[in-house]
Amino acid sequence: MATHELSQEQLDSIYTFAVDLGRKAGQLLLESVEKRIGGGEGQLFEEKDSAVDIVTQTDEDVESFIKNAIHSRYPTHKFIGEETYAKGQSRDYLIDEYPTWCIDPLDGTVNFTHIFPMFCVSIAFIVNHRPVIGVIYAPFQDQLFSSCVNRGAWLNEKRRLPLIRNPTIPPMPANAPGKCILSCEWGKDRRDIPDGNMYRKIESFLNLAAETGSRGGKGGMVHGVRSLGSATLDLAYTAMGSFDIWWEGGCWEWDVAAGIAILLEAGGLVTTANPPEDPDTAPIQDVRLGSRLYLAIRPAGPSATESGRQTQERTVREVWKRVRQLEYARPGA
Amino acid sequence: MATHELSQEQLDSIYTFAVDLGRKAGQLLLESVEKRIGGGEGQLFEEKDSAVDIVTQTDEDVESFIKNAIHSRYPTHKFIGEETYAKGQSRDYLIDEYPTWCIDPLDGTVNFTHIFPMFCVSIAFIVNHRPVIGVIYAPFQDQLFSSCVNRGAWLNEKRRLPLIRNPTIPPMPANAPGKCILSCEWGKDRRDIPDGNMYRKIESFLNLAAETGSRGGKGGMVHGVRSLGSATLDLAYTAMGSFDIWWEGGCWEWDVAAGIAILLEAGGLVTTANPPEDPDTAPIQDVRLGSRLYLAIRPAGPSATESGRQTQERTVREVWKRVRQLEYARPGA
Repeated sequence: MATHELSQEQLDSIYTFAVDLGRKAGQLLLESVEKRIGGGEGQLFEEKDSAVDIVTQTDEDVESFIKNAIHSRYPTHKFIGEETYAKGQSRDYLIDEYPTWCIDPLDGTVNFTHIFPMFCVSIAFIVNHRPVIGVIYAPFQDQLFSSCVNRGAWLNEKRRLPLIRNPTIPPMPANAPGKCILSCEWGKDRRDIPDGNMYRKIESFLNLAAETGSRGGKGGMVHGVRSLGSATLDLAYTAMGSFDIWWEGGCWEWDVAAGIAILLEAGGLVTTANPPEDPDTAPIQDVRLGSRLYLAIRPAGPSATESGRQTQERTVREVWKRVRQLEYARPGA
Repeated sequence: MATHELSQEQLDSIYTFAVDLGRKAGQLLLESVEKRIGGGEGQLFEEKDSAVDIVTQTDEDVESFIKNAIHSRYPTHKFIGEETYAKGQSRDYLIDEYPTWCIDPLDGTVNFTHIFPMFCVSIAFIVNHRPVIGVIYAPFQDQLFSSCVNRGAWLNEKRRLPLIRNPTIPPMPANAPGKCILSCEWGKDRRDIPDGNMYRKIESFLNLAAETGSRGGKGGMVHGVRSLGSATLDLAYTAMGSFDIWWEGGCWEWDVAAGIAILLEAGGLVTTANPPEDPDTAPIQDVRLGSRLYLAIRPAGPSATESGRQTQERTVREVWKRVRQLEYARPGA
């Protein structure tokens, strides 16, 4: 058991604290948005306050708020935040076996800047390298995704994830990636390098999107391709069962830790994005949190002939056959 | 004035009716979703009721509900619905100068099937070929977008669109499509035809996404690329100012009529997706509703040197320089 140092009672208490913290931090994000929306209470900005300044300030303020709240309540826990990293020089992987909070005060920064509702606060609690508690709160649409190990994953603390469970949680489709929704992101690295990450990503998206059997047998003909601009919410919607497959490279641990906690507790699978030499037989290992390469499959129930896990693993292998290797190194990896 | 046959008072009354109708229809969509979510009140489905059957049934039921409500209240108005078309043989463009309702009971069908919240009901009222009232309701996140000509465009009837207006509605960026969010869809046509629509779309997305100056000078380096799987909501979020540019081919009038009504009333611009021979000088004409080719630009305020409309038109021309011609014919076009 990954959480042998903490009792379930302790975890439950930390979970309650984390949910409350997520809602309060989300409220701060919303207040920052309200200031840019005209027509009422909000203080008028000076022209010199650019949207970028406001967003950076919000990002820092919300991280401080979360950091202080955690430090007051759990002074012995470690804290790793997106802003903390950004200001340091290093991107070493800092998570170890000790109880650690890994948070992103504002995931989906570009969405936030444009007030596209797909932005959120992301809070994970990690013990022994495993994210055991996750809280993701998207305040503009008031959607809270949360989980605690052994307690289930939830939308707004009342609907269990995955959502579709009547009459049963569906297995992954027999011809997956056919009939699947693929969630993927164009990302920030759009350099025009031949065979660089951008082109490898697009080629992979095309393989998964094109009609079955085309592209040299790689055509997967997914049902739909979605890009939200938030890795955290991509994972949340995969846990919800809305997305079947999320394939991504380039994220950092604060982008994915809470989402992975929620997805795993909901019954999903997360492994590496990069295909192994033999995708048909290679072991399907749990993702390394700091690996920057992620392939997530939604929670799945059994089919007539396979367990839920078998339908997920079959899907992993079919995705691996259609995607390219991505190159996202990190210091110390 | 396009609506000379109807007084503003009449339009206001029709608007109130349309908003109420949108909310009720959205509630029906939500009830259908609830049935597939386990854990309570919902009646258990028989295994034979596939998700596809349920969705088709919902689509038809909601269209009937809307059609009947309109027919009772406005028996002389014409009615065009997505399901009505789908069951007929023809895809002729049927809208004329008479008062006409053009509705899609369920836009984002794939999202609805997977319970990804980006599905909605879409209701437009059209007079003299112009959509003058639009109602889009996404019930899972309780977001209602609505507009009536001369009355503004609104989110949930209380926040005026576009949202960001403090201190002013921002102009389109000086280096647009740089700093813009591009909204686009992979669509259903994923046939592996060399230089077919799928490849032309992807090439266009790539031109807009790649670093500035790359791809033979076509690199646009948008800030982000988003795909929601709902043309209707793409337009709604463009009206909201969340997306700066929406470029799409292949939609039908019921996919876009309500969104265009809302976008225009919010101050946006909609023209054709397909670049003219000389994108620098060609006139920027209002889109034809049934053209199946759409380029939408969000509402924009003036910059120090340009009117809002000038910043939009400049953006249209820069997009046209980076996209390919798409081929989406229709009978009678």
